[in-house]
Amino acid sequence: MTVELEDLRVRTLGECRIPSPFSVLLTDKETTPHFVHEDDRVMLDDTMSVIASRSMETLPSLETAGARRNIYFDPEHTTVGIVSCGGLCPGVNNVIRGLVQELTVHYRVNRILGFRNGFRGLTTTYRHDTVDLTGRSFRDITPTGGTILGSSRGDQDADEMVDTLVAREVDILVVIGGDGSIRGATRLVAAIDRRGLDVAVVAIPKTIDNDLPYTDQSFGFQSAFERATDFIDSVAIEASAHENGVGIVKLMGRHSGFIACYAALATYGADMVLIPEVPFTLDGDDGLLGRVEHLIRARGHVVIVVAEGAGQDLLDATGQLEETGATDASGNAKLGDIGQFLAEELTEHLTGVGLPPTLRYIDPSYSIRSVAANAYDSVYCLRLAHAAVHAAMAGRTETVVVRWRRRFVHVPMPVITSHRNRVDPDGDLWMSVLEATNQTEILAG
Amino acid sequence: MTVELEDLRVRTLGECRIPSPFSVLLTDKETTPHFVHEDDRVMLDDTMSVIASRSMETLPSLETAGARRNIYFDPEHTTVGIVSCGGLCPGVNNVIRGLVQELTVHYRVNRILGFRNGFRGLTTTYRHDTVDLTGRSFRDITPTGGTILGSSRGDQDADEMVDTLVAREVDILVVIGGDGSIRGATRLVAAIDRRGLDVAVVAIPKTIDNDLPYTDQSFGFQSAFERATDFIDSVAIEASAHENGVGIVKLMGRHSGFIACYAALATYGADMVLIPEVPFTLDGDDGLLGRVEHLIRARGHVVIVVAEGAGQDLLDATGQLEETGATDASGNAKLGDIGQFLAEELTEHLTGVGLPPTLRYIDPSYSIRSVAANAYDSVYCLRLAHAAVHAAMAGRTETVVVRWRRRFVHVPMPVITSHRNRVDPDGDLWMSVLEATNQTEILAG
Amino acid sequence: MTVELEDLRVRTLGECRIPSPFSVLLTDKETTPHFVHEDDRVMLDDTMSVIASRSMETLPSLETAGARRNIYFDPEHTTVGIVSCGGLCPGVNNVIRGLVQELTVHYRVNRILGFRNGFRGLTTTYRHDTVDLTGRSFRDITPTGGTILGSSRGDQDADEMVDTLVAREVDILVVIGGDGSIRGATRLVAAIDRRGLDVAVVAIPKTIDNDLPYTDQSFGFQSAFERATDFIDSVAIEASAHENGVGIVKLMGRHSGFIACYAALATYGADMVLIPEVPFTLDGDDGLLGRVEHLIRARGHVVIVVAEGAGQDLLDATGQLEETGATDASGNAKLGDIGQFLAEELTEHLTGVGLPPTLRYIDPSYSIRSVAANAYDSVYCLRLAHAAVHAAMAGRTETVVVRWRRRFVHVPMPVITSHRNRVDPDGDLWMSVLEATNQTEILAG
Amino acid sequence: MTVELEDLRVRTLGECRIPSPFSVLLTDKETTPHFVHEDDRVMLDDTMSVIASRSMETLPSLETAGARRNIYFDPEHTTVGIVSCGGLCPGVNNVIRGLVQELTVHYRVNRILGFRNGFRGLTTTYRHDTVDLTGRSFRDITPTGGTILGSSRGDQDADEMVDTLVAREVDILVVIGGDGSIRGATRLVAAIDRRGLDVAVVAIPKTIDNDLPYTDQSFGFQSAFERATDFIDSVAIEASAHENGVGIVKLMGRHSGFIACYAALATYGADMVLIPEVPFTLDGDDGLLGRVEHLIRARGHVVIVVAEGAGQDLLDATGQLEETGATDASGNAKLGDIGQFLAEELTEHLTGVGLPPTLRYIDPSYSIRSVAANAYDSVYCLRLAHAAVHAAMAGRTETVVVRWRRRFVHVPMPVITSHRNRVDPDGDLWMSVLEATNQTEILAG
Repeated sequence: MTVELEDLRVRTLGECRIPSPFSVLLTDKETTPHFVHEDDRVMLDDTMSVIASRSMETLPSLETAGARRNIYFDPEHTTVGIVSCGGLCPGVNNVIRGLVQELTVHYRVNRILGFRNGFRGLTTTYRHDTVDLTGRSFRDITPTGGTILGSSRGDQDADEMVDTLVAREVDILVVIGGDGSIRGATRLVAAIDRRGLDVAVVAIPKTIDNDLPYTDQSFGFQSAFERATDFIDSVAIEASAHENGVGIVKLMGRHSGFIACYAALATYGADMVLIPEVPFTLDGDDGLLGRVEHLIRARGHVVIVVAEGAGQDLLDATGQLEETGATDASGNAKLGDIGQFLAEELTEHLTGVGLPPTLRYIDPSYSIRSVAANAYDSVYCLRLAHAAVHAAMAGRTETVVVRWRRRFVHVPMPVITSHRNRVDPDGDLWMSVLEATNQTEILAG
Repeated sequence: MTVELEDLRVRTLGECRIPSPFSVLLTDKETTPHFVHEDDRVMLDDTMSVIASRSMETLPSLETAGARRNIYFDPEHTTVGIVSCGGLCPGVNNVIRGLVQELTVHYRVNRILGFRNGFRGLTTTYRHDTVDLTGRSFRDITPTGGTILGSSRGDQDADEMVDTLVAREVDILVVIGGDGSIRGATRLVAAIDRRGLDVAVVAIPKTIDNDLPYTDQSFGFQSAFERATDFIDSVAIEASAHENGVGIVKLMGRHSGFIACYAALATYGADMVLIPEVPFTLDGDDGLLGRVEHLIRARGHVVIVVAEGAGQDLLDATGQLEETGATDASGNAKLGDIGQFLAEELTEHLTGVGLPPTLRYIDPSYSIRSVAANAYDSVYCLRLAHAAVHAAMAGRTETVVVRWRRRFVHVPMPVITSHRNRVDPDGDLWMSVLEATNQTEILAG
Repeated sequence: MTVELEDLRVRTLGECRIPSPFSVLLTDKETTPHFVHEDDRVMLDDTMSVIASRSMETLPSLETAGARRNIYFDPEHTTVGIVSCGGLCPGVNNVIRGLVQELTVHYRVNRILGFRNGFRGLTTTYRHDTVDLTGRSFRDITPTGGTILGSSRGDQDADEMVDTLVAREVDILVVIGGDGSIRGATRLVAAIDRRGLDVAVVAIPKTIDNDLPYTDQSFGFQSAFERATDFIDSVAIEASAHENGVGIVKLMGRHSGFIACYAALATYGADMVLIPEVPFTLDGDDGLLGRVEHLIRARGHVVIVVAEGAGQDLLDATGQLEETGATDASGNAKLGDIGQFLAEELTEHLTGVGLPPTLRYIDPSYSIRSVAANAYDSVYCLRLAHAAVHAAMAGRTETVVVRWRRRFVHVPMPVITSHRNRVDPDGDLWMSVLEATNQTEILAG
Repeated sequence: MTVELEDLRVRTLGECRIPSPFSVLLTDKETTPHFVHEDDRVMLDDTMSVIASRSMETLPSLETAGARRNIYFDPEHTTVGIVSCGGLCPGVNNVIRGLVQELTVHYRVNRILGFRNGFRGLTTTYRHDTVDLTGRSFRDITPTGGTILGSSRGDQDADEMVDTLVAREVDILVVIGGDGSIRGATRLVAAIDRRGLDVAVVAIPKTIDNDLPYTDQSFGFQSAFERATDFIDSVAIEASAHENGVGIVKLMGRHSGFIACYAALATYGADMVLIPEVPFTLDGDDGLLGRVEHLIRARGHVVIVVAEGAGQDLLDATGQLEETGATDASGNAKLGDIGQFLAEELTEHLTGVGLPPTLRYIDPSYSIRSVAANAYDSVYCLRLAHAAVHAAMAGRTETVVVRWRRRFVHVPMPVITSHRNRVDPDGDLWMSVLEATNQTEILAG
């Protein structure tokens, strides 16, 4: 995936001429805050061999996020809209609170609107149902799970949404959403451009699967895999308490097995981890069925952690994916239930070899999506929100705010949706998984 | 359910002539422990009107549990077996640890065996696979969820089990198990009697549903409903974040809705609670479908907590209970999936009236059964275990140890399995449920 | 402590002639709620030997709590005041929420006032600062720790408080408070009586120490000792990680060692438990110093759980209690710091015998008092609140609502403050503590 | 702080000629693991302006950690020692388990020794008391808080420690320790060098304060500040429930205020954060006393989070630091108790202005140090341990393993102890703290 320097330049609505109120505030106290200069940039890749192979001028780099000395929008006359889209993810309310707090306390923006239920809240039918977030009410945004603004999946007509922004006099729209929603935001920017409007759209990427590129870890990811370990523990306890116990936990991860890997590493109960990035077979010497049988005979029970996107080729082959081509409201291809499939295949195989299993299969998806952000994610969400406000007030648009190699940076929307972050089957995360589970022993025959 | 005084007399193998080692231990230090006298008894019913209606001599009362000054078995020559049966329940390992600790530290019993995987571990095939629990190893019994001895459902041949007790020279068998297992233990006692053996069998009742009579609350119950609240919170958050959100949590409770009631009271997210003890209808003015529709229109979303045994008549009527008469390994009738049924009926109804729901249905059974005991249950399990050891060392047999109105007492096995503890639809627990949910408002029309 | 039947009769303001709205509500639906009859009573003591020793007519019994078919106050014209007093305790907000919910949803009372910061909120100076709790706002009373009404220690002038009740037209005052506050409430009732006012005062007893009599367990107690176990674990981990490690945790318990006992039983890290009810010595064969030295030599480290009221005689003897006779704002005698005293004595002794300790002393008081109610206490507080509302609406006054042997009952205020609930040194709780710690081994020499 | 390229070159005992067993294992299965090449390096600084200012050849870079195709030590004949030093920190047992697991499963090292109680365990007196960690016992290293090996503060004689390594035939010593321990390890390496021994010493840096440079975040840091939030919540609840409530929490951070900053950001209860990096005054317009008074008047209560190293100049000025120059066993200067000092100053000031406070001061140090690693730290510790084993087996010595900008890298010991990581008062972390507390408002006058 080669990204060139020009791909990484973010768009700005215009020149920043208005002194940041932040600046005034602090200068009085003779503190010199770390205002970001317009040409502060950090390397996209920090590998010496990559750097040495290019001329300094063409090395891809990213614009640093943070407060600017001068900003584009005049806070007093700026209206900010906030919308949260897609499936639930820990931390959305923390982001919303952080946005409202920064806009209110720091920039003293006078009008903040929350659109209800995702992009649907920007349609003609629902646009009346906005939430007023202005003022000090942010203290009442308790950081529970879920989203106080509601959410919905799927895109809406871009022009209809621009109509709403105009009708509500919105200058800045902050979108909290995933892959699909950021594509939707990109289309919204195009529609804004077509009308020549002076409206900024910035996004804070939300993906519980941690599958967006140029992102250390997506917000809520740590809270999610932390909660996921509870369910691995549960099936491990159930499996170990019964003869021929088999525990299966299906975790989120359509394309990327990060939650499965991290949750399995964080607990000590997982014997096998199956992820979309690493194919596996059922039958044969290296096949899953034989390996599980081997483990049952050796240890009495087995625990399998499987990402929802793993082994889809096997489901396809057995005709389990009837509705090939079907998609959900977010435009994602519908996946077959790999957990249920494995449960059935393992029950049949183990019963056949005289080891009728006591099988426990848990699919805890919504119990994970709905948890509150843990302490780390609470801080992370707050800082992402602060960075997003700085970006928007400085006129950045079609821009997402992420943390890359421990720096908050700006990335153009099209770059963030250009490909997915995936577990590297040759990298050290997957190596650690192989080491920490019983997969290696079996691999070694 | 009338129980007479003679029903409540527990069996004793013989006269207690051996001074308790406990007694020696403490007398040295001039402490006078609260030894229980052989005629210490407490009232079964403490209602004045009941008491006034009977003569003092015939009032049903229960034998108090606790340490006796004299015991039946000579600790030095006593072998104790422990077995855990049936589905997992928080606290089983705490009970096992408490038994081993009391037997080791207090009575200095020299031989303690753990039978593996429930009554199956007492069969000829599996009896070799026992766990030696003798000595100080109790410090290594960490009180996680599950059971270090394993478990299994279902009964085994009583005579084969007696053979094992004889072969292993077991004098006392402590059974940790539910309704079915206590019936099994009763049959085991009968088989022991037929051979004229001097073996005591005592039980600590285990029922995550809290459905055994003469029991304040079964051990693990509080840990279970505490964990259950997490899932009510999850569906409440999911439901409130989506248009026409419907959240359904199915909780344990085949015959008794205690977990559903307590979990719903402990959280503030439940709008409706459905339990086996209170029938409900789907259609009509008071029907569930209309009430949910009403709540969706009024509040935007609804959360339903349903016990697994609720509404089985509705499933039966719609032919969902295909396998009438089918039973599981524990001999329980197979239930239809009321949660899935409600999910389908509500989706159809709400879609039909123009409120297509976003529905989340969670059945967290094994995620609840496998949790560790909370602080309260840890103490409770320890004290139950201590009481069970005292009972067994004093020669009680065919006896269960429970807490009734805050006293640890002895109850004959047949009495404890004679009927079930159920939520009283006219009592104050159910009244509180009606008050604390949105059911009352609807009831009031 | 002999209590006679006449002591247990609760006062009622007058005859109950108004049909309960609850009754109308449910009759429509053909449900027969369990209305309590005026003569429903349960035994105070359920021991057969006690019962057999008295005539039926003189047996002490308690009035059952619950909804009455007829009530004293007309909900439509009733104003209810709520006040929370004394130190924080888990569950106060749950009680407040339960009161508001029951008054609002069930009885449809139109005016509910919260007085701020304990009885101080009823004084002339502070009475303007009340919180309006009327209406559906109870949904916003999130059950965090602390109290939304604030609290204060100490009594206030009874007549001034009556003035406030009159000025605010309060018909019912619900007091959430401990020993001292209930005495204050009793004085308030006397002042109300002197003026011949028709005002009911009911209390829900709050004591984190669980030291009030005729109470199964005070609300918040389970949450408190659950949290306390964290700190025992902490010092146990610190002690076990260092040479000659000594961990000391001081827990609440001025007169009664319940929290120390339960927390020690719930964890497995405590070697010794010191409570006010069981005296101990420092020196000599059985002395604490020698026992700890013995444990250090045998196991390398030791963990001591001490209730704040334990060993005050030792402090007194060494002149550590300088301000004898001093009392705090609640009128309690100031205690010497037994934890600090033990830390110093043990450091000196162990250093003297060549075992210089690494000592960790934690006094987590406020970290425990401020926690939220756990699931069990959440339910318990709700049901206590419901019972208190039923009592007050039925005109009970000078009455506290408690749970005794699993029944919600009414007890006259003077009885509840007549003596304290204490750990019985000869009872089974303390026996279990001796068994579960390393105290027995040392006792046995 | 300028670090040159040559400073960053890590030492290696010799050429790596032995094929990694890992390599064989995986090649069989036709997987190509990501073996690290000897010249894989990443940039120390990724700022474009820094990079552009230097020639490519002189840019400071770090060696990447990970598995090497060829290793230095022959696993079959290698003995590995492990020692944990200094104060407790969440995750030490996870690191130990990860080391044992990787050495056992991956490299099949035959002999692993745990030295007890820090460097003291390497002295002549204590060296006999080692723990055998060989074999599959790692499954029994449950990841609770603390350290199964014990710990101690302070250095020991380097030559005596080398004697122990020789006597125990140790080829690799892995040190889990902080600043002082890594200096000790450096001296140990010098002593090894003087004898010309072929022994590798690698370290995994442990600092709960997160104050070591070139480290994204030290292991256990997230678990620590997560736990710290509980205590901020506690004093916030106490403060808000009482008139003129003042809550103070003193958190770890001798030189660096990271825990204070992160814990304050993660909760919403902190009004002021005081850290060593940002001086403050007590009196005057901007002084702390006046600001707190202002907040009490405005909001009724105030919550202060203070790092233990903050405001030492104030203590010094008031003569509170009597023992200037005193140091603890680890060689750290003894700090004055800033929390106690603030408690006294605030009580005096607020009482003087007619606002006598209800003050709660919590110093939860040991309750934080002793917690178990959370899910994130569990994974992080495991991966750090894996990287340390790879480094040691490849003959690296005088080397620490850290994560820097999301890469596991090798850093020479002298570099890691050359200076401290501190909160940048002009950086975005501190800016976010100012935004998220009530400090800004006061700063703004």
